[in-house]
Amino acid sequence: MEPTPIRRPRADQARLVADVLRHQIHAGGYPDGLPAEGELASEFFVSRNTVREALAALKAEGLIGRGPKVGTHVAIRKYDHDLDALVGLKATFKGYGEIRNVVRAAIPVAAPPAVANRLQLDPGEEVIFVERLRFLGDLPVSLDMTYLAPDIGAAVLENSLETNDIFALIEEATGHRLGTAALAVEAVAADAHTAALLQVPDGAAVLLLERLTHLDDGRPVDLEYIRMRGDRITLRGNLLRGTS
Amino acid sequence: MEPTPIRRPRADQARLVADVLRHQIHAGGYPDGLPAEGELASEFFVSRNTVREALAALKAEGLIGRGPKVGTHVAIRKYDHDLDALVGLKATFKGYGEIRNVVRAAIPVAAPPAVANRLQLDPGEEVIFVERLRFLGDLPVSLDMTYLAPDIGAAVLENSLETNDIFALIEEATGHRLGTAALAVEAVAADAHTAALLQVPDGAAVLLLERLTHLDDGRPVDLEYIRMRGDRITLRGNLLRGTS
Repeated sequence: MEPTPIRRPRADQARLVADVLRHQIHAGGYPDGLPAEGELASEFFVSRNTVREALAALKAEGLIGRGPKVGTHVAIRKYDHDLDALVGLKATFKGYGEIRNVVRAAIPVAAPPAVANRLQLDPGEEVIFVERLRFLGDLPVSLDMTYLAPDIGAAVLENSLETNDIFALIEEATGHRLGTAALAVEAVAADAHTAALLQVPDGAAVLLLERLTHLDDGRPVDLEYIRMRGDRITLRGNLLRGTS
Repeated sequence: MEPTPIRRPRADQARLVADVLRHQIHAGGYPDGLPAEGELASEFFVSRNTVREALAALKAEGLIGRGPKVGTHVAIRKYDHDLDALVGLKATFKGYGEIRNVVRAAIPVAAPPAVANRLQLDPGEEVIFVERLRFLGDLPVSLDMTYLAPDIGAAVLENSLETNDIFALIEEATGHRLGTAALAVEAVAADAHTAALLQVPDGAAVLLLERLTHLDDGRPVDLEYIRMRGDRITLRGNLLRGTS
């Protein structure tokens, strides 16, 4: 079989070109700007119109900037969040810069039944609720809502939440290591309030993580709802083929 | 410290209530409908107006339906996709029903440089490109674009792509087990074309997975770009605290 150019509707082709370029960009490709349209067209074996449509999509995502004469440059940087190990944002982003937390709430509240259930407490029992807007430098990247078991929460609150990961504070406060966490990952549209805090457009796609973390003795102590900016964070991990 | 009701801006409280309810719903809670507003208000120690705002958000997401007299019911079901092991959609969804694939393309194409690079081929070398729209029953859940190494792809194409996972076909065709895969997960807005195929509104949040899968001898053979409906699929896995 001879390699043949892709002959398919332009929208399909453009999506493909955009996908490949997007991942090249996130992998740190094109630090000096993207190749010219004609060059991309011949790389991908598609028409220049298809390349233009792909670049328009990436521009709409805010990923690239384009200008007459100046060409196409990468406009946004995306950051990798480790999906293999249980790490806080500060620990996983340590190669990128400093994480700073704006603590929007750190208060005792009565646990709603569903939260009490996950933390193996009685409904209405007191838990510590912490809400943090997390910045990488000046960039808001994540809005985290955390419910902590009462004893753990009280100990954590004795430390600065502005610059530390809660995971580190829990281990410090308890002398225990964390064990495992159950993680759920969803893509949701940002509600107006979340969008304003994270400085993204209303309805922008965000990663919503629900994470229930246990101490190494199996006790669940930390239930978090985390919203990460979809345009800024990629979750990365490795999968292993099991026996099936 | 006495447990105190949460005294915070209503938008913050409503988001919290919505988050907890959302995860209860996805966990299969409330098969007979949600509790009345008054009951939820006292469970969460918030006002009925806050509960109404939370329920309005869940309704906007399409997660619940509400009607006068009939109360509030769960309107949508969400499906869990395994994030711990390397499994195809058919294998991970086998408890939910049959996966059916509409094969939109299955053709040899010249590999764009970025694709060739990931698959350790020369730029322009032939690869097999497969695009599938994947249905769970009648529900479109995922749009998958796959690049396969030429020999693997040719063997895979000898089998029915309509009802099989490509992972299973690769193992059958090669006599090799798959080994590991590198996974990237992003939340992106659906472009118009993707939205039409997946039957979601323009700009709806979708999970975008890039997954490079290797045979057990380490050879990369399968590069996929997968778009999953954010309103229908949750990725679930477990994290382990490493040594750090």
